[in-house]
Amino acid sequence: MSLASEPSAGAAGLNESQREAVLAAFAGVLDASGIIGGGSPDAARYLHDWTGDYGGAALAVLRPATVEQVQAVVRLCGEHGVAIVPQGGNTGLVAGAISDGARPAVIVSLERLNRIRRIDAANFTLQADAGVVLQTLKDAAEAENMLFPLALGAQGSCQIGGNVATNAGGINVLRYGMTRDLVLGLEVVLPDGSLWQGMTGLRKDNRGYNLKQLLIGSEGTLGVITGVEVKLFPRPANIETAYLGARSFAEAMALFGLARRVCSDLLTAFEVIGGECIPLAVLSNPATRVPLADEWPVHIVMELACSAAIDGRALLETLLAEAFEAGLLGDGAIAQSRAQAQAFWAIREDLVEGQARRGMHVRTDLSVRLSDVPRLIDQARAYVAADWPGWLPIAYGHAGDGNIHFNVMPPLGLAPERIREEGRRLLQGLYAVARDLGGSFSAEHGVGRSRRDVFLAGLAPNQRAAVRALKAAFDPQGIMNPGCLVPPVTNLDQ
Amino acid sequence: MSLASEPSAGAAGLNESQREAVLAAFAGVLDASGIIGGGSPDAARYLHDWTGDYGGAALAVLRPATVEQVQAVVRLCGEHGVAIVPQGGNTGLVAGAISDGARPAVIVSLERLNRIRRIDAANFTLQADAGVVLQTLKDAAEAENMLFPLALGAQGSCQIGGNVATNAGGINVLRYGMTRDLVLGLEVVLPDGSLWQGMTGLRKDNRGYNLKQLLIGSEGTLGVITGVEVKLFPRPANIETAYLGARSFAEAMALFGLARRVCSDLLTAFEVIGGECIPLAVLSNPATRVPLADEWPVHIVMELACSAAIDGRALLETLLAEAFEAGLLGDGAIAQSRAQAQAFWAIREDLVEGQARRGMHVRTDLSVRLSDVPRLIDQARAYVAADWPGWLPIAYGHAGDGNIHFNVMPPLGLAPERIREEGRRLLQGLYAVARDLGGSFSAEHGVGRSRRDVFLAGLAPNQRAAVRALKAAFDPQGIMNPGCLVPPVTNLDQ
Repeated sequence: MSLASEPSAGAAGLNESQREAVLAAFAGVLDASGIIGGGSPDAARYLHDWTGDYGGAALAVLRPATVEQVQAVVRLCGEHGVAIVPQGGNTGLVAGAISDGARPAVIVSLERLNRIRRIDAANFTLQADAGVVLQTLKDAAEAENMLFPLALGAQGSCQIGGNVATNAGGINVLRYGMTRDLVLGLEVVLPDGSLWQGMTGLRKDNRGYNLKQLLIGSEGTLGVITGVEVKLFPRPANIETAYLGARSFAEAMALFGLARRVCSDLLTAFEVIGGECIPLAVLSNPATRVPLADEWPVHIVMELACSAAIDGRALLETLLAEAFEAGLLGDGAIAQSRAQAQAFWAIREDLVEGQARRGMHVRTDLSVRLSDVPRLIDQARAYVAADWPGWLPIAYGHAGDGNIHFNVMPPLGLAPERIREEGRRLLQGLYAVARDLGGSFSAEHGVGRSRRDVFLAGLAPNQRAAVRALKAAFDPQGIMNPGCLVPPVTNLDQ
Repeated sequence: MSLASEPSAGAAGLNESQREAVLAAFAGVLDASGIIGGGSPDAARYLHDWTGDYGGAALAVLRPATVEQVQAVVRLCGEHGVAIVPQGGNTGLVAGAISDGARPAVIVSLERLNRIRRIDAANFTLQADAGVVLQTLKDAAEAENMLFPLALGAQGSCQIGGNVATNAGGINVLRYGMTRDLVLGLEVVLPDGSLWQGMTGLRKDNRGYNLKQLLIGSEGTLGVITGVEVKLFPRPANIETAYLGARSFAEAMALFGLARRVCSDLLTAFEVIGGECIPLAVLSNPATRVPLADEWPVHIVMELACSAAIDGRALLETLLAEAFEAGLLGDGAIAQSRAQAQAFWAIREDLVEGQARRGMHVRTDLSVRLSDVPRLIDQARAYVAADWPGWLPIAYGHAGDGNIHFNVMPPLGLAPERIREEGRRLLQGLYAVARDLGGSFSAEHGVGRSRRDVFLAGLAPNQRAAVRALKAAFDPQGIMNPGCLVPPVTNLDQ
């Protein structure tokens, strides 16, 4: 199924009078600014993902301003057989929050549900509406001298509800976990319009099946998240950053093991950058200066955060001394100022920007055991070298989590349609490398629509049956984000 | 329903020839030492829980020695309509691993599935069969200079599979999380006998619905766990322990907030002990000496663990100095030796032993927000004082997790049947106090059979429907641990 199909009317299967009846029903529960017609120019930014590669059409974009309005909208959709695509900041990478226009659907944007509800400082928690922008939530925590550690490139526009629906990762997973690990409470409108009230701030709660964990990461296919209560942490007083050069990924991973030990798991980030990525950082920012004396096959950006009562600098120095002693490190620098730390991080950020600037490319989000990270990169490089002459692989990512973005740049000048077609085949080979190592094709980006086929193909029959049974148990009508994660079902299919 | 009913033949609903046919079928897939007849004296220890309060009868106790044998047993049970009660170390507190004898059932003990499968040191993980005793697993990690942090009173006999099935907690949750947070991979025999293969060592894996998290804590009602892969941590080089006196639980919780900050979340335990518990420690161990100069309403045992590169002692001293300065602390001592640290911990352990020695009592496992811990204790004490004259409340527990064991001793000399009957009513009042604070009646012990009624009563209609739908989706025949968590269903009910 092509997801990049031309927008239809977004009301496939509805005749004009049905369409009008549905819109009138929405108008009965939402104010004027709560409804944007699917054909309006204002709707455009909700109808395609940020890459522009995926999108379609919808009957309307609905912007409920209260939880009750979300419930009313979901009930109306159930009555009229209209599909619901929940949408946060629309920053996802797997086409999970768009409508493909194949059936009557509405986008339900959570952006007007955007209040911080409560900070409970003594409980180290914060309650928020689902539509609160991640950065806003982080700022609210910081204002209380607390930290909400989720940190992603999109944090200025993604929303906490979307982070929870997709179980977002990012650069601080190492220390603080995925979004899944940060959520204590959840409030969700189920496909029947009822409110699932799990808005608890409890750290320990063993009351039966953990529905919360099932809903987290379910990508809007089981319900619409309307509120969350997240864990906060003491805001670190000291942050120390190092930029290191290593001879190989194997050496980098051995260094990581040592770093966990020496630093008592106070590391907040351990990012690797293949030396081949540096020209991309330079492409994005010609002023890039790598703080290493020589060229190294692998660069590492490492960060440690601690309280004022711990000497973080001394800790990093101890680590580097032990690493040099053990022959695990080529060269390295500890940032002497916040500005220098930012310059270290800029290399990691600029290479991503540089990739986009160079043009279309094959992107992955693979994960393997930490012990298999060097093998993953070796095997993926060997595969590209053997089967895809002229294509340029680059490897970087969250090595401390076993999560590598192994991306591949097409030969310069290759026509876009050939990049797309060949890239799809190349991608399958990379997925196979990860799969054969017992790895995952999706460490943190999810499944959505663009990876649904590889997801389903990788499931054993009893796993596939469990996925279907869960979807059917929660959403028997198949109206929640149809086509995302599981193939769409319609009433007629049942 | 009384669970403490007399043992029946354990084959209710089967006639003699059916019973023989079933046992013959089991004999076809298990060796002789894999089957213990339900009437044999050897079966007794599997048929009742360790309190002796709960138990019943079973057709047989089955002891499969391989995963394939577990699958074969589960398939046979499905064919013959025999219920399966998975059992680990049988150390649970909520009657989750016993058969009530109301229908034909077998206990499936995992004790012969007891191999450590693999330690992947570079991945900081360990793979084990479900029947490995927790202490054995901890020892195996320690032999590699690693730590498996789950720590419970029953660790010498409970099994890792049971820990996962019940999402066990314990004293180190503060730093390392519940069992749920420690499990990367899971291998489960589903009720149809198929093997659900989720034995991954991945730290990040966003492939669809998180079935692993649904299975964790499902108390054997959705399948039989046969293998797990758990996270390991660097083994701390320094462990520092303090014993403190505080004027109130409010002060203790404020101290906890300060401790998180000052110690950079390196705390591994923050246990509170109401001053009223000390006589129970003395009852168990007359040599008990509290390391505080005066009597204090609240005692705290706090522990911090770190690498050799961090001065843990200095960190604790900084914390105590800041706490005294802020008026948050009455008195305190830092252990000067491992022996002294053990003496501090002995007080916490002995009070539990002393409770048992004093005799039957009402036990709880409540959790609330950290900010509500003082309120919980105040309100529960007020309730007991007002409504239960002569009963003696004691409060202790994992305050850093908001988890308080608020227990109540009956007046001395009260007849056992009156303790049981009045205790049941008293308990409802304690549950109500926690519930009204948005808390949980089960922080870490689970639901099992003994708390099923309060569990179901606390669910909203859509939550109850979701619980039923999940159970039905995985176990349509209702053969997995019937009566645990959800009311039993039989084929006839459907």
